[in-house]
Amino acid sequence: MTSTKTWVYLFDQIADAQTAAGGGWDETRALLGGKGANLGEMTRLGVPVPPGFTITTEACIAYLDEGGRFPDGLWDQVLDAVGKVEAAAGKTFGNVERPLLLSCRSGAKFSMPGMMDTVLNIGLNADVIASLIELTGDPHFVYDAQRRLVQMFGSVVLGVDDALFEAPLARFRERAHAATDAELSPADLQAAAAEFRKIVERHAGQPFPDDPITQLRDSIEAVFRSWNGKRAIDYRNAAGIDHDLGTAVNIQTMVFGNMGDDSATGVAMSRNATTGEPAIEGDFLVNAQGEDVVAGIRATRPIAELATEMPERYEEFAGYSRSLEQHYRNMQDMEFTIERGKLWMLQTRDGKRTAQAAVRIAVDQADEDLISRDEALMRIKPEQVDTFLHPQFVPDSKQAASNDGALLGIGLNVAPGAAVGVVAFDADVAQRWADDEGRAVIMARPETKPDDVHGMLAANGIVTSRGGRTSHAALVARQFGKPAVVGVAALDIDLDERVLRVGTRVVHEGEWISLDGNTGEIFVGQLEVRTPDLDNPWLTKLLGWADERRDIGVWTNADTPADAALARNYGAEGIGLTRTEHMFFATDRLPIVQRMITAELLADQRAALDQLLPLQRGDFAGLFRAMDGLSVTIRLIDPPLHEFLPSHDELSHELTDLKIRLTAASDLAELDGLLRDIEVREHLLERVEELRESNPMLGLRGVRLGIMRPDLTRMQVRAIFEAACEVAAEGVVVHPKVMIPLVSHVNELKFQREVLEAEARSVMEERRREIAYEFGTMIEIPRAAMTAAELAEFAEFVSFGTNDLTQMTYGISRDDAEAGFLISYIGNGLLERNPFATLDEAGVGALMRLAIDGGRRRRPDLQVGICGEHGGDPESIALSRKLGVDYVSCSPPRVPVARLAAAQAAIVG
Amino acid sequence: MTSTKTWVYLFDQIADAQTAAGGGWDETRALLGGKGANLGEMTRLGVPVPPGFTITTEACIAYLDEGGRFPDGLWDQVLDAVGKVEAAAGKTFGNVERPLLLSCRSGAKFSMPGMMDTVLNIGLNADVIASLIELTGDPHFVYDAQRRLVQMFGSVVLGVDDALFEAPLARFRERAHAATDAELSPADLQAAAAEFRKIVERHAGQPFPDDPITQLRDSIEAVFRSWNGKRAIDYRNAAGIDHDLGTAVNIQTMVFGNMGDDSATGVAMSRNATTGEPAIEGDFLVNAQGEDVVAGIRATRPIAELATEMPERYEEFAGYSRSLEQHYRNMQDMEFTIERGKLWMLQTRDGKRTAQAAVRIAVDQADEDLISRDEALMRIKPEQVDTFLHPQFVPDSKQAASNDGALLGIGLNVAPGAAVGVVAFDADVAQRWADDEGRAVIMARPETKPDDVHGMLAANGIVTSRGGRTSHAALVARQFGKPAVVGVAALDIDLDERVLRVGTRVVHEGEWISLDGNTGEIFVGQLEVRTPDLDNPWLTKLLGWADERRDIGVWTNADTPADAALARNYGAEGIGLTRTEHMFFATDRLPIVQRMITAELLADQRAALDQLLPLQRGDFAGLFRAMDGLSVTIRLIDPPLHEFLPSHDELSHELTDLKIRLTAASDLAELDGLLRDIEVREHLLERVEELRESNPMLGLRGVRLGIMRPDLTRMQVRAIFEAACEVAAEGVVVHPKVMIPLVSHVNELKFQREVLEAEARSVMEERRREIAYEFGTMIEIPRAAMTAAELAEFAEFVSFGTNDLTQMTYGISRDDAEAGFLISYIGNGLLERNPFATLDEAGVGALMRLAIDGGRRRRPDLQVGICGEHGGDPESIALSRKLGVDYVSCSPPRVPVARLAAAQAAIVG
Repeated sequence: MTSTKTWVYLFDQIADAQTAAGGGWDETRALLGGKGANLGEMTRLGVPVPPGFTITTEACIAYLDEGGRFPDGLWDQVLDAVGKVEAAAGKTFGNVERPLLLSCRSGAKFSMPGMMDTVLNIGLNADVIASLIELTGDPHFVYDAQRRLVQMFGSVVLGVDDALFEAPLARFRERAHAATDAELSPADLQAAAAEFRKIVERHAGQPFPDDPITQLRDSIEAVFRSWNGKRAIDYRNAAGIDHDLGTAVNIQTMVFGNMGDDSATGVAMSRNATTGEPAIEGDFLVNAQGEDVVAGIRATRPIAELATEMPERYEEFAGYSRSLEQHYRNMQDMEFTIERGKLWMLQTRDGKRTAQAAVRIAVDQADEDLISRDEALMRIKPEQVDTFLHPQFVPDSKQAASNDGALLGIGLNVAPGAAVGVVAFDADVAQRWADDEGRAVIMARPETKPDDVHGMLAANGIVTSRGGRTSHAALVARQFGKPAVVGVAALDIDLDERVLRVGTRVVHEGEWISLDGNTGEIFVGQLEVRTPDLDNPWLTKLLGWADERRDIGVWTNADTPADAALARNYGAEGIGLTRTEHMFFATDRLPIVQRMITAELLADQRAALDQLLPLQRGDFAGLFRAMDGLSVTIRLIDPPLHEFLPSHDELSHELTDLKIRLTAASDLAELDGLLRDIEVREHLLERVEELRESNPMLGLRGVRLGIMRPDLTRMQVRAIFEAACEVAAEGVVVHPKVMIPLVSHVNELKFQREVLEAEARSVMEERRREIAYEFGTMIEIPRAAMTAAELAEFAEFVSFGTNDLTQMTYGISRDDAEAGFLISYIGNGLLERNPFATLDEAGVGALMRLAIDGGRRRRPDLQVGICGEHGGDPESIALSRKLGVDYVSCSPPRVPVARLAAAQAAIVG
Repeated sequence: MTSTKTWVYLFDQIADAQTAAGGGWDETRALLGGKGANLGEMTRLGVPVPPGFTITTEACIAYLDEGGRFPDGLWDQVLDAVGKVEAAAGKTFGNVERPLLLSCRSGAKFSMPGMMDTVLNIGLNADVIASLIELTGDPHFVYDAQRRLVQMFGSVVLGVDDALFEAPLARFRERAHAATDAELSPADLQAAAAEFRKIVERHAGQPFPDDPITQLRDSIEAVFRSWNGKRAIDYRNAAGIDHDLGTAVNIQTMVFGNMGDDSATGVAMSRNATTGEPAIEGDFLVNAQGEDVVAGIRATRPIAELATEMPERYEEFAGYSRSLEQHYRNMQDMEFTIERGKLWMLQTRDGKRTAQAAVRIAVDQADEDLISRDEALMRIKPEQVDTFLHPQFVPDSKQAASNDGALLGIGLNVAPGAAVGVVAFDADVAQRWADDEGRAVIMARPETKPDDVHGMLAANGIVTSRGGRTSHAALVARQFGKPAVVGVAALDIDLDERVLRVGTRVVHEGEWISLDGNTGEIFVGQLEVRTPDLDNPWLTKLLGWADERRDIGVWTNADTPADAALARNYGAEGIGLTRTEHMFFATDRLPIVQRMITAELLADQRAALDQLLPLQRGDFAGLFRAMDGLSVTIRLIDPPLHEFLPSHDELSHELTDLKIRLTAASDLAELDGLLRDIEVREHLLERVEELRESNPMLGLRGVRLGIMRPDLTRMQVRAIFEAACEVAAEGVVVHPKVMIPLVSHVNELKFQREVLEAEARSVMEERRREIAYEFGTMIEIPRAAMTAAELAEFAEFVSFGTNDLTQMTYGISRDDAEAGFLISYIGNGLLERNPFATLDEAGVGALMRLAIDGGRRRRPDLQVGICGEHGGDPESIALSRKLGVDYVSCSPPRVPVARLAAAQAAIVG
């Protein structure tokens, strides 16, 4: 017989497993799953863990690969390990004298809370029950354990609908006038267990197996299979976890928190998972099993109360908490059980946390020298910074709502941010309203289950009436950055009537509600929200470290002084893109712009430009003041002129209507008016038709327009330099950078530079003031990238317009494609990701590399930036840094995100 | 004193000039101009050339650079050279005893016939005239020489309108009943000269200078200045000659062909410039000056008659003709004068010729071992091959026109091809009608002048009533490939009445005429034209040599069997592009295609596809048969579907009309019909709106469409393979190549390849026949070029769609831009050339190089072609070869052009 693979490791064989996995901790976690590896690690650390063993992820993969067959040797190794656990526990599985009960839990490499299956109390059958009652003298506990086993085995292993078990229990509670199952008599529980067995037999078509070994084997298989369950797959898709990893299975001696009032069970974090405060935070229940805490079925007690209730155990727990955090160098999420006064640590893992908590914990731990600053920076996902910019309620609006009695209740503030939406009472409705109908939705449930994740992802916010800080709803909401309030006990959510009741007040499904994830308040109606300042001291500190660490600049795209000021407050170090045409769309300016475009006489055109000049000058002066001392990159007009005129269709429709009215017109005055209206529109339509292009994106815009309509760009340059002279006179330090869009050939740049520099010089002479400025170009056309060496002769800086560059490099019109084939491509896997969200390295990135290398060959100090939307995307920032850009420029709210992403890119190198 | 530059070389100092120029013949021509270098060369060869010297092009450039001042030393060198010419001629300039007369002629590096100025008979004044009459005893000649000098000096040097000199002369002729100036009496000529002097003084504001030295100096300056005259600049722009070259000036002893009946003057080619026949061809006049021949003022006599008239001189001339052709290894265009029985060779240069003549001469000369085959191939511009495809009149149409008495006259067939157009009597009208109004124009003039070139370029053909084979009209027409007939003596073109008279027949300006440049016939009315076969034996031979020489393939773009057969006849070696959608536009198919697109039920769509299948199969079978044994590359559907539907505007307008009619409808049946019509169009408009894209070029087309509408591409692939099986059964050798358009990402190609190869396999299984085929892709999107290495994994061949690749690389929508800014860019020099006509090396070419290198890295035998319009452009062919393409594919008529261009590219290397 050849030696078979090792599929099973006892918790105290962690060192062997580590060697087998290749030595690294990450590989060990991959082999044993996070939970298994941690149980082994805790065992190695001397933390009291109930004896047990881990079946490896490789065994799961082999099982699934072989179509649901245990690989060779696995079962023998399991039986062997059970024997060793029996020895360690001094109990025997299936034995009536010292019966050993086991738990069977999933444990993948990456935590997937509640997504896979667990069976507890394995090993109970009629004989063992009798024996156990005798041994413990606690029939209530034993029958409760039995009915739990039957229920879990029935639903998890045999696929019986979990809801079926609720009715009998409710009946017993009602009959006994009991509020909770704990108040039921042992006889009731025994009867319930018997009924549960009948339910299983009826619905599964087979009896509940009394053989402990069969129970164990079937449970292991069920956990293996749950890896490919729908909700697990959905979760992995949402969380970006690889589907090939498999789950490990942990078989562990059962300990019981429900063995009386000297028993308890709880979950706790080593620091506050919502705020990051350095204090143990969690929930516990006396005389309960762990699932009671997690499922949020019973109202939990704050962990602090354990210090009063069982001070020695609390101190012991706090000690383990400290040493585990020290060991793992991260905040820990722990499960424990106290069985008749003995503390057992059941699990530890890195704790999930809100973005706020993540930032505070990382900063605190760096300050405590537990981790380095680089580690602290790497601990925060750039997107988490974004949650600091989540909308908050405007205080007045909230005050008014409170005064109006709109407050429905207060729950646990488990995930920050304000959310407003129509209330939906299940995940499918929430998803349909949000995704298909584009409505803002708040999903409200008594509690959430893994099956609800799709609705939670679709919703703007989550409310539950039950559950604690570590409930499923809280964990998922935190992870995905959804504002959430849980455990709002005042809410009665009636799923049959599709209403939510608070006392006598009734809110129907589809009505507006608002929730404040920072305070836990729930309101009826639509409260006003605003985007907050980034005044969190820990974030400020972290971003300060990021600024020290990063080696590329973070600039902003801003068209108005208000945007510029906001971005500067967020840490922007310059303006990388001002779209001058955005100013033309202002309602007071559009008519002037239209006059300029449709003028038939040069004099009329010039008059319109003369009107625009002081307005643009004012725009630029405002930007210069807001960015005093920093660079302001102003891109000259880019879009085709027809964008400023009414659309062809609009005019055509108006004309059709007018002509139809003409045929019906009766009196002369009306006729006259209609004819005049028709004439005006026909004239406008003519101009629109003249300007119409079959592919406007590739048409007369950017520098092409600048060359064909030189008066327009000259006016813009004049406005820039007049504004610069004006504010410089006030003492403002100005650094204008004039940027030419859509260049494809060096001659365009050369020609524009000559014309525009002449205008700049003449303004400076008129004003008798020298303004130091730079001249540069966008690179947004593939040819510009290919010929960047030539462009660099006339450009002191270049900025990649990665939106257009992606469009042209891919030959994709974004507006058309994102409503069409592009989404289908991403959906069916033809494209891994949307190239408009994350820079395409192989195509666009390769062009950028050519451009940067070429440009710097000609001009070694060529300044290079990017100013497309990619400038705020962490992956794109890392790529840009690798390619050698000097700065990224992004919208103001992305500036803090980009600061952190840039630091992480520098750390990763 | 420092040594000054040498500005002047005597004809017999050609060796010194060559050394000064750097040794090469090209540099020598650049320094002395073509004429000057040739005069020197002829002198060196012992050909009798009147003594003289050349002022270098450098002197001209220096003169113009210094704002019209002779550079230091020039004038001294001129005077010194005059002294040496005097010694050689045994005459003295300005001397009354043995007076020397000089000519002053321009001579640039590249011949610009008639574009710059000449002054003859310099050195005449009252004293010299008297002396000369005494010496020659020929007052007629002397006074004629005088009036010519005054006229030429007046117009050329002093800017007096040349037309002013015509009236007095006409008056004298009328009074003397003389047909030509030669019949005027010496006294009349003397009086005419006196009147000319008065005209000069009156209109120039200064008297004609009697000082010979002043005459010479002023003439030299006038020639210098003429380099920058408007007509010279226009010519250079049209002919692509550099404006910086400058002209040389040749000062030469005058010899006179007008010294009586033993004197003559003429121009002749060493071979026939129209047909290429190896026989001297030209014109001469007895007792005349050279300009009489060139200007076409007097009816010239064919050179053959000189053999009878002056047999010894003719033999002597024929000898020089042979030796000059041997020396220059090219057909020569020579000017000669016989002065009182002595033959002087005044000029030789490579002769201009028609394309037909060029081909025959090159082939003959190669066969004579005068030049190599490579030289013969290099002698023909690829565009000249194109003229072989010029339209010819359909014989029946011409016969019918002749029978109807439409023949207006017969002239000299100086430039081949048939042309039809409305007659225009001056260059401005011709240009306006042709360029602004898009009309086909024939320009008809008594004779043409350099000022007329813009009209000649705009016209389809040229007719003159005067002038010979070497007249201005003939030269220009030949060079620019315009069909032309000159010297149609029967035509009386009345510029005042704007009519053309032939006897009593009158043709008004704007009426249609037709000309046959092959036969010299002119017809009234519109004759039918056709494109000829390439059955010229010399061309066939030359293209055969080209095929041996070239190292890339020449394929064709053909959508129909007829196109394919034509291209194969033209020498195409395969089909590089069949646009399958072109077949969809056929009137019998478009309704089916529209049904397929607008179908709401899948069954309807499938039914339409089922109808299209046999039609496409027939298309492909026809192509395979026509290309038996050669590759046929079939590109699957490329354009967006909305191209097959009526336009949005069209439908909107129809709807507007219908709705207006609806308001006026009176009876119920009409109302009903209108409502039904409206409904149909509204439904169609809805589909059109659904399919509408803001930038269709970058939208749902090509492979994207293939992926989104898989049934359509599957139908096409099925049609290809069913057709291939069908014709293979007939014994046809088929090589289908399936080409996927618009790929931007390797996954598109991979996905399509799987789907389509499955379809191909199933057809082959159904038909039980194996067809060897290849699968490949277009490269027309920049990203495809950047990632060609990835594509090459799934493509056996790639073909550059250089039209789209240029559009996307430049970010230019060709349709929009060529009607707008692109033309303006080319006009104002921002772009040197249209990138859609000639491949842009720096941008598009650089991308192609990346693609080819990348693709061949992954698949060393990757076949690479180009199939954009650039495939027929000689410069683009040379670039493509340099980049490593295996074949170019072009429209059928460009195939012969491409064969020669490819050979030339191989020769140049």
